[in-house]
Amino acid sequence: MKDTKFRGIICPVVTPFDVNGKIDETIFRREVKYLLNTGIHGISPGGSTGEGAALHDDELTRLVEIIQEENANQIPVVAGIIRNSTQDAIRAGLAVKKAGADALMVTPTYYNVLVPDNAGNYEFFKSIAEDVGLPVIIYNVVPQNEITPELFYRMLDVENIIGIKQSVGGIQAFYKMKLMCGNKGLIYSATDDMLYSTFALGADGAIAAILTLFPEQCLKIWDFVESGDYDGARALQDKMYPIWQIISGPQFPRRIKQALQFVGRYSGYCRSPILSASTVEKEKLEVLMKEL
Amino acid sequence: MKDTKFRGIICPVVTPFDVNGKIDETIFRREVKYLLNTGIHGISPGGSTGEGAALHDDELTRLVEIIQEENANQIPVVAGIIRNSTQDAIRAGLAVKKAGADALMVTPTYYNVLVPDNAGNYEFFKSIAEDVGLPVIIYNVVPQNEITPELFYRMLDVENIIGIKQSVGGIQAFYKMKLMCGNKGLIYSATDDMLYSTFALGADGAIAAILTLFPEQCLKIWDFVESGDYDGARALQDKMYPIWQIISGPQFPRRIKQALQFVGRYSGYCRSPILSASTVEKEKLEVLMKEL
Amino acid sequence: MKDTKFRGIICPVVTPFDVNGKIDETIFRREVKYLLNTGIHGISPGGSTGEGAALHDDELTRLVEIIQEENANQIPVVAGIIRNSTQDAIRAGLAVKKAGADALMVTPTYYNVLVPDNAGNYEFFKSIAEDVGLPVIIYNVVPQNEITPELFYRMLDVENIIGIKQSVGGIQAFYKMKLMCGNKGLIYSATDDMLYSTFALGADGAIAAILTLFPEQCLKIWDFVESGDYDGARALQDKMYPIWQIISGPQFPRRIKQALQFVGRYSGYCRSPILSASTVEKEKLEVLMKEL
Amino acid sequence: MKDTKFRGIICPVVTPFDVNGKIDETIFRREVKYLLNTGIHGISPGGSTGEGAALHDDELTRLVEIIQEENANQIPVVAGIIRNSTQDAIRAGLAVKKAGADALMVTPTYYNVLVPDNAGNYEFFKSIAEDVGLPVIIYNVVPQNEITPELFYRMLDVENIIGIKQSVGGIQAFYKMKLMCGNKGLIYSATDDMLYSTFALGADGAIAAILTLFPEQCLKIWDFVESGDYDGARALQDKMYPIWQIISGPQFPRRIKQALQFVGRYSGYCRSPILSASTVEKEKLEVLMKEL
Repeated sequence: MKDTKFRGIICPVVTPFDVNGKIDETIFRREVKYLLNTGIHGISPGGSTGEGAALHDDELTRLVEIIQEENANQIPVVAGIIRNSTQDAIRAGLAVKKAGADALMVTPTYYNVLVPDNAGNYEFFKSIAEDVGLPVIIYNVVPQNEITPELFYRMLDVENIIGIKQSVGGIQAFYKMKLMCGNKGLIYSATDDMLYSTFALGADGAIAAILTLFPEQCLKIWDFVESGDYDGARALQDKMYPIWQIISGPQFPRRIKQALQFVGRYSGYCRSPILSASTVEKEKLEVLMKEL
Repeated sequence: MKDTKFRGIICPVVTPFDVNGKIDETIFRREVKYLLNTGIHGISPGGSTGEGAALHDDELTRLVEIIQEENANQIPVVAGIIRNSTQDAIRAGLAVKKAGADALMVTPTYYNVLVPDNAGNYEFFKSIAEDVGLPVIIYNVVPQNEITPELFYRMLDVENIIGIKQSVGGIQAFYKMKLMCGNKGLIYSATDDMLYSTFALGADGAIAAILTLFPEQCLKIWDFVESGDYDGARALQDKMYPIWQIISGPQFPRRIKQALQFVGRYSGYCRSPILSASTVEKEKLEVLMKEL
Repeated sequence: MKDTKFRGIICPVVTPFDVNGKIDETIFRREVKYLLNTGIHGISPGGSTGEGAALHDDELTRLVEIIQEENANQIPVVAGIIRNSTQDAIRAGLAVKKAGADALMVTPTYYNVLVPDNAGNYEFFKSIAEDVGLPVIIYNVVPQNEITPELFYRMLDVENIIGIKQSVGGIQAFYKMKLMCGNKGLIYSATDDMLYSTFALGADGAIAAILTLFPEQCLKIWDFVESGDYDGARALQDKMYPIWQIISGPQFPRRIKQALQFVGRYSGYCRSPILSASTVEKEKLEVLMKEL
Repeated sequence: MKDTKFRGIICPVVTPFDVNGKIDETIFRREVKYLLNTGIHGISPGGSTGEGAALHDDELTRLVEIIQEENANQIPVVAGIIRNSTQDAIRAGLAVKKAGADALMVTPTYYNVLVPDNAGNYEFFKSIAEDVGLPVIIYNVVPQNEITPELFYRMLDVENIIGIKQSVGGIQAFYKMKLMCGNKGLIYSATDDMLYSTFALGADGAIAAILTLFPEQCLKIWDFVESGDYDGARALQDKMYPIWQIISGPQFPRRIKQALQFVGRYSGYCRSPILSASTVEKEKLEVLMKEL
């Protein structure tokens, strides 16, 4: 059954690196405190926004520890797991569980020629759910290894598999997933520029990069829709839309970090090979952030 | 300059796993011996065929050690490096260098939303080439992070970057790369079902999964083209073509392992989440392998 | 400026053919009468639903004449123009104008290797608008020749170009078009399975195949959103969604005609090479139509 | 069975238009004479190069008449038929047959949402072949309506369906078609920049835009391969390659016409909405044409 304690705005958090590619824990802790103060309903390190594919288990573990030092189990901590084999995903899952994670958000494997078929994906998520023993949210973000609504529907019979963050395919894929599986599992929006539209279609929450940049506004959109104020929600969505057009796309964490800097939340470097935002990206962002 | 000692048939080798996902060193050693006896010009563990994205550094290192125990530096050992950050790729490169690798075959990073732009890719390969200090062959296999001929041409000015294995885009991308960069760097064919056609366009060699299944025939195609017998080469290509149509595609290593079993070279399991070949796959392969 | 007389539910109409590929005017007239009785705000022959790419000018003209015989200028008649050169589109436009059309809905040219660039598309639509002298709605349905929001924004300075029917790219492309051009031109939804969601984002109307199958329900969705009853609108959208999943895709007119038959509105054959719906399609549709 | 009189270099010919979009018969006749003098094995008006999708039946007919006035049945005339319904294709086929065409080269229908399934495509080509009574070459150029090797294999049992011009999918699709259907039908190369490579794989001929720009060189490539001089053939292919990179892509006829002008064969305008080549295109072409 759907576990409603995981509903709402589950906010990703960036992983700040220093110039040598080491995690800057001071900045990370400051970001965590900032986000917790906004009233978000959950927090999620180690996803795409957190450059999780480039994080080792011990680093991911440390991020969860720092979060729980500040959070003290007030809101759920959903740890991102982005690995390329079942055993690596389980090992990472056990590590963050020990560090205090409340749930896992797990991508399918993604090295193009090694992505499995439905049977392999089923075994992958089932093994993780059973061996780690934490609630699992599938992070459906890999175009070359997409989890279909039919497959997710079957997976929902596995204990601990509770939801899906629908990223590939945009709002149309979200809606399809919602209509087919929404009565059994949690369906999260990851359509950063159309949050209102997905909330109006019954999303159980959002886990999306834009939440970490504009947590207050995204919480407002959520509350507006919950209270039936669709026009208010749409107005906010319209306003944030052009900024997301600049940020989205490959290596978006560098543009998120640049935008965070523009709102006074400097968040360090990305991990190589992702370099800092280009001059053109900075200029485009600066203009739009000022207009907001 | 082009280092001709790396020309020719550089043969990938599968990584045999037991039912628990541990490497089976006995089978691996037997496969290595088999391949070395065929007269291949180079050998390459840890690529896509070797499920390199799912291998840890210590495992990859062990594979290189075993190869050198059998090979004793007779032919070049080109170790596959499939990692998601610059520092992880360098660490893996240093490990296999110590174990006896003669060169690296390195993919660009591949987690879709974290793939870098040209500047990031340039830094990625330059750092690896410089910090590891081994010849580097770029493994151009990631559709979401393709290295263009223009970028590769620039990279060829970096010491130790010596070649590219052109996989994405098929023979047409290979030909473009060859015409633009063939005078400066080694251009390897990875078009498993059209080896002759790429050799006839001047490929400096091949690094392709099909080599490990049919090393003798692929060596013959190479020799035929070198000696000007194009008709002989094409006849062999025509013959192997239908088998590759069954093997190619996502999770092809499981079908390579199945085909190896049909020719008496049982190679164990794939690492989860890749399951063993399906009944349908087995049946299709069996029919074709018998016809060969 | 936006011409509000073209707002609302502009309903396509199928072109019924007999077994020899001739238009069956009796059935067409009956369909027109049926649709006019539902209270639709406009009617549109000769689009994709009407198999307009396979209609000659004289046939298209006859369809417009029949419509006006029944409609007597009560609601706007928007004639589809699907042609492959500027001169052919103008000729067709002049013919339907003479027959009583109130506006044109014109696709860009679509033979893949002959699609023009932005300058050519601009000239195409400008020439049609000027030479025919009727309001023009661009029918943005050709993936290989997509009109961008930037280009459409410029086109809106041409007299008579009044709107766009946004079909390629789904709701996300619709929303982008709406935000960029919605203050200058009419933006029509063509997202058959998400009409409510596009109306809630401010669509000026819809021109979509599903309207001709479920005109009453689609009018209700429109009215619900106009009156602020978003939940009512979404419930209807949820209900029609699965049927559209069966109908949509290449050669959808044959499935529309099959569905029309199931609701007692037999509409003849499609024009060859489109054959009648397959047995599988019929069975899937029958089950869903009964559930509705 | 394969009709060998249609083997070899079947050369497309452009359709020159004046500034008002009318066919310039004087230029067309001059082009036809030029091509016939080169020794080509066949000639093909009204294909993509000839902007056939924008030509009416009477125009196409006139082109065939002019060709036969100069050709006097010396070499086969293969008329392009690019239409959107079975009846339109048959009507066009009968018209060009009367005008003296020896064979038809027919595309599948191409308006995206109206493309048929396999059964519809089979009926389309069968009806044309039977009702027109001329040899039919399928022009496999429409990505949204691709004829598979399996389907073509079945079609080859229809009398008068004799071959396929394989354009979509490049050399790899060509090779697949050749291996599956080459013993029953003629397989033509349409891979403009890799003619030698397809000839070396057993192409029965070529029908490709580049032939009309460089007929002498393409004839040489054909003869080189026929006589076993693969190196000579490859050298010519290497030389023409960069020019095709500039010419290929949407609206390529305008760049063909520009290139023809650079070699002293001015060929007028394209039909609107295709405008003349841009300044950038002209400059790129001029540099390369001079180098040749």
